[in-house]
This record gives sequence, C-alpha cells and structure tokens, in this order.
Amino acid sequence: MAGRRHGIATACLSGLLEDKLAAAAAAGFDGVEIFVPDLLGSPEPPEDIARRCADLGLVIDLYQPIRDVEALPPDAFAASLRRVEHAFDVMERLGTSTALICSSVDPRAIDDDDLAAEQLAEVAARAADRGLRIAYEALAWGRHVNTWDHSWRIVSLADHPALGLCVDSFHLYARGGDPSGLRSVPADKLFFCQLADAPRLDMDVLPWSRHHRLFPGQGDFDLTALVGHLDAAGYDGPWSLEVFNDVFRQADPGPAAVDARRSLLGLEESLAGSAGPVVDGTAFVELAVDPGTSAEVTDALAAFGFARTGEHRSKAVSLWEAGGARVVVRDALPDAGSVPAAVAALAVRTPDPEALARRGVELLAPRVPLPHAGDEAELRAVAAPDGTLLFCCPERPDPGRDDFWPGDFRPTGARPGTGVEGVDHVALSPPFDLVAEAELFLRTVVGLAPVGEPTDIVAPFGLVRGRLFASSGADPVRVVLSSSLVRRGGWAPGVPAPQSVAFAVPDVLAASRAALDAGLDLLDVGPNYYADLAARGVADADVLAEHRVLVDVDPTGAQYRHVVTPVLGGRVFLEAVQRVDDYAGFGAADAPVRMAAHRRARR
Amino acid sequence: MAGRRHGIATACLSGLLEDKLAAAAAAGFDGVEIFVPDLLGSPEPPEDIARRCADLGLVIDLYQPIRDVEALPPDAFAASLRRVEHAFDVMERLGTSTALICSSVDPRAIDDDDLAAEQLAEVAARAADRGLRIAYEALAWGRHVNTWDHSWRIVSLADHPALGLCVDSFHLYARGGDPSGLRSVPADKLFFCQLADAPRLDMDVLPWSRHHRLFPGQGDFDLTALVGHLDAAGYDGPWSLEVFNDVFRQADPGPAAVDARRSLLGLEESLAGSAGPVVDGTAFVELAVDPGTSAEVTDALAAFGFARTGEHRSKAVSLWEAGGARVVVRDALPDAGSVPAAVAALAVRTPDPEALARRGVELLAPRVPLPHAGDEAELRAVAAPDGTLLFCCPERPDPGRDDFWPGDFRPTGARPGTGVEGVDHVALSPPFDLVAEAELFLRTVVGLAPVGEPTDIVAPFGLVRGRLFASSGADPVRVVLSSSLVRRGGWAPGVPAPQSVAFAVPDVLAASRAALDAGLDLLDVGPNYYADLAARGVADADVLAEHRVLVDVDPTGAQYRHVVTPVLGGRVFLEAVQRVDDYAGFGAADAPVRMAAHRRARR
Repeated sequence: MAGRRHGIATACLSGLLEDKLAAAAAAGFDGVEIFVPDLLGSPEPPEDIARRCADLGLVIDLYQPIRDVEALPPDAFAASLRRVEHAFDVMERLGTSTALICSSVDPRAIDDDDLAAEQLAEVAARAADRGLRIAYEALAWGRHVNTWDHSWRIVSLADHPALGLCVDSFHLYARGGDPSGLRSVPADKLFFCQLADAPRLDMDVLPWSRHHRLFPGQGDFDLTALVGHLDAAGYDGPWSLEVFNDVFRQADPGPAAVDARRSLLGLEESLAGSAGPVVDGTAFVELAVDPGTSAEVTDALAAFGFARTGEHRSKAVSLWEAGGARVVVRDALPDAGSVPAAVAALAVRTPDPEALARRGVELLAPRVPLPHAGDEAELRAVAAPDGTLLFCCPERPDPGRDDFWPGDFRPTGARPGTGVEGVDHVALSPPFDLVAEAELFLRTVVGLAPVGEPTDIVAPFGLVRGRLFASSGADPVRVVLSSSLVRRGGWAPGVPAPQSVAFAVPDVLAASRAALDAGLDLLDVGPNYYADLAARGVADADVLAEHRVLVDVDPTGAQYRHVVTPVLGGRVFLEAVQRVDDYAGFGAADAPVRMAAHRRARR
Repeated sequence: MAGRRHGIATACLSGLLEDKLAAAAAAGFDGVEIFVPDLLGSPEPPEDIARRCADLGLVIDLYQPIRDVEALPPDAFAASLRRVEHAFDVMERLGTSTALICSSVDPRAIDDDDLAAEQLAEVAARAADRGLRIAYEALAWGRHVNTWDHSWRIVSLADHPALGLCVDSFHLYARGGDPSGLRSVPADKLFFCQLADAPRLDMDVLPWSRHHRLFPGQGDFDLTALVGHLDAAGYDGPWSLEVFNDVFRQADPGPAAVDARRSLLGLEESLAGSAGPVVDGTAFVELAVDPGTSAEVTDALAAFGFARTGEHRSKAVSLWEAGGARVVVRDALPDAGSVPAAVAALAVRTPDPEALARRGVELLAPRVPLPHAGDEAELRAVAAPDGTLLFCCPERPDPGRDDFWPGDFRPTGARPGTGVEGVDHVALSPPFDLVAEAELFLRTVVGLAPVGEPTDIVAPFGLVRGRLFASSGADPVRVVLSSSLVRRGGWAPGVPAPQSVAFAVPDVLAASRAALDAGLDLLDVGPNYYADLAARGVADADVLAEHRVLVDVDPTGAQYRHVVTPVLGGRVFLEAVQRVDDYAGFGAADAPVRMAAHRRARR
C-alpha cells in the first residue's frame, strides 16, 4: 500500500480547523484540502495554519473552492479575477500550489465553452505566474457545465499547462458519468482526484451531495473502477476524500478520520484485487455480563440447551456449548461498575488467525493485547469502532497451537447440549455516530458483505435502519447492524439499544417446547399477531402462538421462525431461529412487534 | 371551530399504542385511525383497545391499511379476501366501520381497471354484509393506480355503496394532482380525508412520504384549497392526520399531538379566511439571567447604549431602554439553580392584547397566569412549545389600562439611551424535537410568516438549519429559529444552543465605536475574514475589521452589517445590526465564522 498519498478535505470533519487537522494527522493522512470557510473561521494567519499542518506532517494538497469564476460577462469576470488573485495570495502564504475552481452556478454565467475556456486560461496564466495551478471541476449542478467530460472539453479548449481537471467521484457518478473515458485524458491534465461514495438515492443531486455522501466502500458507487481508470491514465496525485455527510459533520472527528482513512486502505486493497480475508464461521460469541444479573443470561442459555462445559483456568469466564454453538460468558470487568450485559466479542474462524489480525491492524483496527498466563492460548484480537473485539481463531482448535483457546477452560465434565446447530447471527446496535464505521469495519476487516438493502424498521419509538452482513461459504458469519435513523432524545429509549445472539436450531417448535419446559419465559407478543399470521396464510398459527414463535415470511414464501427471550441483564436477548427454504434475511418484519413486547415488559 | 371532527393516525406518534392514544386524547382529538402494526404490537384484545379509546373519548374512525387487495389473479385475490375478512373481524371487535384499502403495489397486480373495480366491489359487498365500508386510496407509488382521479374512476366503475374514496393530501399533491376535481365527487363517495403537509422536495415519492411529511401549515402544500374543495363537495367526515416524519416518530407524543391538533385548528382558521392576529412590533424582550452572571448581560446592554430606566416594584427585574428598544432583565427563578441566560419572553404589541392571548389559547397555547400585585399591570401571556412566553402588549402603553406594564417599574431617573432604533430580531434555538412546533406556533399563534426558504448553515460542529419569520407592517416582529439538522451527540456542543437578541441601529460603525469605547469586547473573527471580504468587493474592509463588523451581502448587493458580543451568561449574545438597502435575511452567511469565533472563545 506504499506510495499512494491519502488526503482529506477539512469539510469532511467536525470541529474547528485545529480539531480537523489534528484528527486527520492522527489517522495517518498525508495531506488535506483546506476548505475556505474553515480558513475564514480561523483567526490564525495562513502562515500559522501552514506551520500547524507541517508540524502535523500534513501537506496542504488543495485550496478549495473558488466559485463562480468563469463564463462571465467582462465586469463580473473582473470581479472574479480580484477574488482569484486574493486566493492566490492566501495560497502562497499557505504554501499550497493547487486551487480548485468548480464550474459556475452564477446566474450570469453564459453557455459558451469558448468564453469559459478563454477566461480559465487567463486565470491559469495568472496562476502560472506565481507557480500555482488550477484544477477545474464540473459540479453536478453547474449552470452550464455539469459533467466531467464537459469540464474536460473546456480544459482542452483552454489548453494551458497550469489548467487541469479535478475529478470528483460524486459529481461523476451522480450524473451517470462513465469513468472509462478518463483513460484517454493525458496524465499531465489530471490535477486532482476527490473521492466520495454515496448511496443511490432518487433525489435532487444538490441535497444528495450535501447531506448523503459517504466514504468509499460505504455506498453504491464503483470507486474501484474510477481509481483504476485514473491509475491507467497515469494519475499520480493523492486520493483525497471530500465527503459531506450530516452525521460525520457532527461526529467526533477522531474516529471519523480513522474511518475515512480505512476507506482508502480498503479501496487500495480492492484496486489490487485482494480477495479479502477468509472467515469460515463463528468460533464463539463472548458476552460480558454483570455478576449481579449473569444468571438471567446463563439460565436462558441452559433453557436453550446449552451446557456449561468449561471454566476458565484464570478468569471469571465460563464456556457454554450446544451443538456447534459456543458462548463464552465472562463477568463484566470489576472497574466497569454495574453495566448492562453486552456482546463483548465475536470470534471468527479463519485459516490464518495472525494474518487476519495483522490485516485488521493494517486497516487501522487497534490490536488488543490479551493478557494470558504462560500456558494459555494466545488469541489474536482487534477492536471494532464500538469497542467490540474481533477474535481471530483457527478453523479447527488444535492442542498443538499457541491459539488453542478451548484448552484455557477446565472441563466441567458436562457434555455440550443438543438441539442447536450453531450461531445464526449476532445483532449489534452501534452508537448513532458509528454506524457507517461499524459497516466499513465489517466489510473491510472482517470481510463480510451486505445482504440486501438496508431495511427501515418502524419501531415503536422511531425508525430503526437494519442491515445484515454475512461472509460467504457454507457456515456464514452473520452480523446485523441496526441503529435509529435519528439520534434518540429524551422520550425515545434505547441507549444503549438491545443486542442479540441468535442460535440456529433445526426445529424451532422443539426448541421452544424445551425452553418453556425449562422455565424460560419466552417473549409472548400476544394474540393479535397470531390472528394476523393466520389471516396471511401461515399454517398452524395456533401452534405457533402456543410456542411463542414469531414468523417472518419473505416474498418467496421462505420463513424465518424464531423465539426470543426477554431482554436479559439489561441489554441482550437470545433467539432460537429456524430458517426454512433458505430464508436470507434477519426477521426485520417482526421487529416492531418484538420491540413493542420487549418495551412493554420493561415498563 | 365547532362541528368539524379532528382525527389522527396512531402512526403519527411515538411510543406504544397506549402512549399514542393517551396523547391524542389529551390534545383534544375526537378520533383516531388505528394503524394495524400498532394493533399487532399490542397484547390487548381489540375489545380492550376499543374500551380504552372510548374511555379516552376517542372514536376509532379508521382501520388502516389493508394492502394489496385488488386487481389480482384469482388465487391471489382469494388470499386477499381471507386477509380482508380477518380485518373485518378485528374491525367488528374494535367497533369501527371504515377500513382503508390502498392501491396495490403487489407485483402480481394487473393493470385492469375493470378487474380492480370488480374485486373491490366484491370486497365492498362483504363489508356491507357486516355494516362496514371501504375507503380506497391511491398511493402515490401504487403499481397501476397512483393518482386520486384514477382511484375515483375505479370507485365509480365498482359502483357499490360501501365503496368510496379516501383522499390523502400527500398522495394527491406529491403527484401534482388537482384537488378542484374533488368538487364533482358525490359527497356519499367521499368516505375519508387524510391530511399531511410536506416540504416540496425533489426526491422519490416513497421516501418523501415515509420520512418528510409534516402537519398542515408546516410545509408547502395548499391544504386550505384541498379541504375547501372537500367542503364544497359536501364531505362531512373527519379531518384526520396521517403524517410520517422521522422526528415526530421519536418525539414525546404529548407535545407532538398538541402540535398536530394546532395544525388542524390553524387550517380551520385558514379555511374560514381569518386574517390572523395583528402584531405591530416588539414591545420588549425579556432575558432571564442568573444573578451570578447578569452583569455580563447588563454591561453589554449599557455598552450598546441602553440605560437602566426602571426597577420593578415587586420583582428582581430591571428595565433597560435605548431608542425604541426595551429589554427586561430578570433574575432567573431562585429554584432554577445556576442556569444559563435565556430569552424568557417576547412581548409583542397588538391592538387587542386579550384577543391575541385568547386566540393563542384557542390554538392550544397554555395561558400563563402572571402573579402581580394589586396595582400592577395584568399582562396577557401564553407559552410557546419551548416554554418561552409570548406577552401580548397594547400598541401604546396607556396608564389608564390594566395592562400598562411600564407602570410596574419605578423610574431610576435615567433617560433611555440613544443610537438604537428598536429590536431587529430575536434568534431562538428550540430543542431538536420542537422545531416544527416552534414554527407552527410562530405562524399560527403569533401570526408571523416565513421569509424565504430555510437556510442550511455549515456550522463548525454540524449543519444548522435556520429560518426567519416576520410579521408584516412597518415595524416587523422578527424571529429566527435555528436548530441542528441532526440531534447533537457527545462531540458536538450546543445544548442548549445560543440564542440572541439583535438591535437595529442606524450606523453600525458608530454603535461599534461606542461599544468598544465602553469596554465591550465585541467578537473579533480575525483577519482572514476581512481579507476575503475585501476580495469580494466590500468597501472599507479595514474599517470594518477595526470595528469588528461582520457583513453579509445578499445577491442584490444589500448588506447586513452587524457586530456581535461574546456569549453572555453562558448562552445569549447580543447584536447591533444595520440593514442596508432593505436587506431581508438574518446574516446566515456569516454564521459559520461567528459560531467558530464564539466556540473558540469558550474553550
């Protein structure tokens, strides 16, 4: 990954200019674009800002934007030139050489490519006199110039060595542009590349751009193709992020900058055609539980058929097993106070645990050293953005290996329970500000891919957007991320929002029967739900009601049949789920009813 | 306003079904639409829900929605009928007679009006057998039927007395429908009217509908026209709100329901052609200030030329005057603890204070009784959603009237200051959940109208949306509402966000000079801003810099020239502003720089 320079526009991050620069540097960026309003909001002279950047190891790659410069009547153009010359003054003081001019939105602008080219050539000549240069960008909502190829025609017409293109992936893809044409642009005309991803939204490009941009890999644009074409054309400038997003604009810039740079590292991998990590299934799930409420969790595990098969040799940690599913329950750290139960770690199986962990570190996930006694396993772990750990475990535990983690548990003599096949999925609810980061972590570090589009769940206390991510292969690792669409306030509960662990069972009725017989108070959503189920043609609704089974039927008729525990230890619930006919989702249609019942039970 | 029935769909409000019903009843609604998912999420049998509604004085006006019923192949229609019969069972238990069927989005639906009509007639016949009826609604994204007139053609074709129309203002206006055609629909075919407003957004209708609906008067649709046509056609059913909005979905349903019903009361006024209240200018602004920091506020007032002209006879309140501007400063209530300074009240002048206050009460604003000694003025006041008071004052204080408020102040002997003409505006920052309510309060109770569109301010810690509201007339009351676009979290500061009071001055340079000479540390945003101002062609930037004057230039060249104090008493800042050439905005372009400087000063 060496050689490529990574940049970020200060407009991507929240805070004062000094906050933004510090965050960009801490995340390892090489350069920044100075967004003019950030400069205007700073009392520091440009020389001091330059020094601050230099001290942080940041190159100022771009000064942006200079607006409404070209294709203007003479008097208006004269005013443009005054603004441009002032920008050049500031740039000299900042020590940066490239300015971005975006295509004019001025109502006085004339639809005349020759005039635009002539005026831009004039600006470029003045820039060249000072050793500066101009990168011209087509805004998707430019008055007359709004596609990258149109901006390229004008740059070609102007034919000045100090005038080149700024290619912005958002503007290009938002207008349905074809990036392959970039291959035929001479490298010495490709001055700058701004990268942003975005979800495909059927809305006006201006608000789409100003509110919904994402970092590469978080949206629907094919940025790998775009940077591939730029590479082929010989572009050797930085990949620089310019992402306007309502959430990132007010999120802590520290983690946001890490997320941003991870997106570029992921893009490099993708461009290099890396196959990504191989994960083969869930080794175990670790729950951290307050000792005061841990019985709620372990009683539920037992009722689902789990047996406590091991006690950790040196820690307050127990191992619970049923079929292929393993759950590790540990006491919450003593200095944490009384805290709700939480999914503390997801352990995945992989052919080369050290390689997976090392790759995570390269993608900026902090490696978490795990204290262990001399003869205990050396588990590899990195931390997700929300602090959850990713354990990297071997595919088959092997007593000869240093990462043979089951050996850390003293057998209780109990045999693993039956009736459970494995872990179906883990559902996490990252904090509002970290959803995009959590997604990117799953996609890049863990190697999961989204299954279907995000689903909006009409939860009783506000919309929740959920999405399933899964690895490929016969025994997929599945993680559901869900988060409220609007940050919760005083009325709506849900901080921290519930998490869950779902176990795959071959027969949900049997699992329910056994759990109920064991005294587990499975969530009962009440008769209105089952009457509706029957009316929708689901067979044996009375049997389902008796077993408290919820059923989500997808459009193909495939079913997600599941039972759910109450919220345990203050935050976590368990599910037993039977997927019928290759049902591929995560039961989102049932979520509102389930949430209402959970909420009612907590009142 | 008597006679008209007001309804609300449970889907509009946040919480469990019982929360929603309680809030609707408390706000004075006559009826509700039971949204099926709310029923499914309730463990109560329909009879109990019916009893709950009856106990609350709520009629169940509608059961909704039944989806994907019509224009289907025979086997699919048979399944529809099973769902419909189940819905009828539930309706009988709920004691409601009208069900909503919305036009099919089923991919199997056939584009055949005759088939749709035939199947709907069959459904209507089954409804009629039970004494029920069907209101058919065209979803804006219906597969084949997506305009109201198309739904009317099908209802006409079906020609069954138990089948009529549900008119939904969102679906009608979102598809550019013309409501005047409703006049020719027979009254006995107008079964139901669902009302929602919305901002005009250039986006796909489905997410527009699901996330951005508003209550009437909060958006851009002409709901007065629509209900006028329905009235003309003889519709006599309820006006029932169906508003899907990301914020309302998780806001406290109590105030949200009040806001909702206020919107219908406002619509009734509008339909009746009421001219609305007359307000003639700002009588005074009241600031509540913690005694520990009140000198910060009063020193700034003095530096802007205000003189303390009176002390309240019985309260810890002082009156400050300069030119036509009056500010009342009162100690924060002793039981409030140490609190930031805040705009406690806006006092407006009106020809008939009691009428204005009474009208506010009719619009659900609580009247606030103001304790006063026997010979003190009896001021009329109602509370805004955020708790700010609206005082209703006479146009000219008259010692003979019971509301002669200046008589409550013992003169200090000081004469009012000079150099200030009056209050230019007050800027409030309502809590995130209450922005739409605050807007509706200003529009309906105070009678202000929005000036221009909302403006997105790229604030250092996240987007802020600001909008100016003003009364008409020579001496307008102006209020700016601004609020973060996304609810603030841990990183971004701003709860409570700053408020401000701006005073109109004839010469901002003179005002600045006087304030600086008086020792007021006017906010200085630094040289980068002034260099940019000069480059943009604003004359005498060096003089402006010296006087710390910020200048916003609108597209016509009109200027908003203002100086700003630091944040005082923890929350409020003061401005002196000179509007040049009828500048009509509120200086939004300068806000990011101003906010950065304020923020920096507080670190």
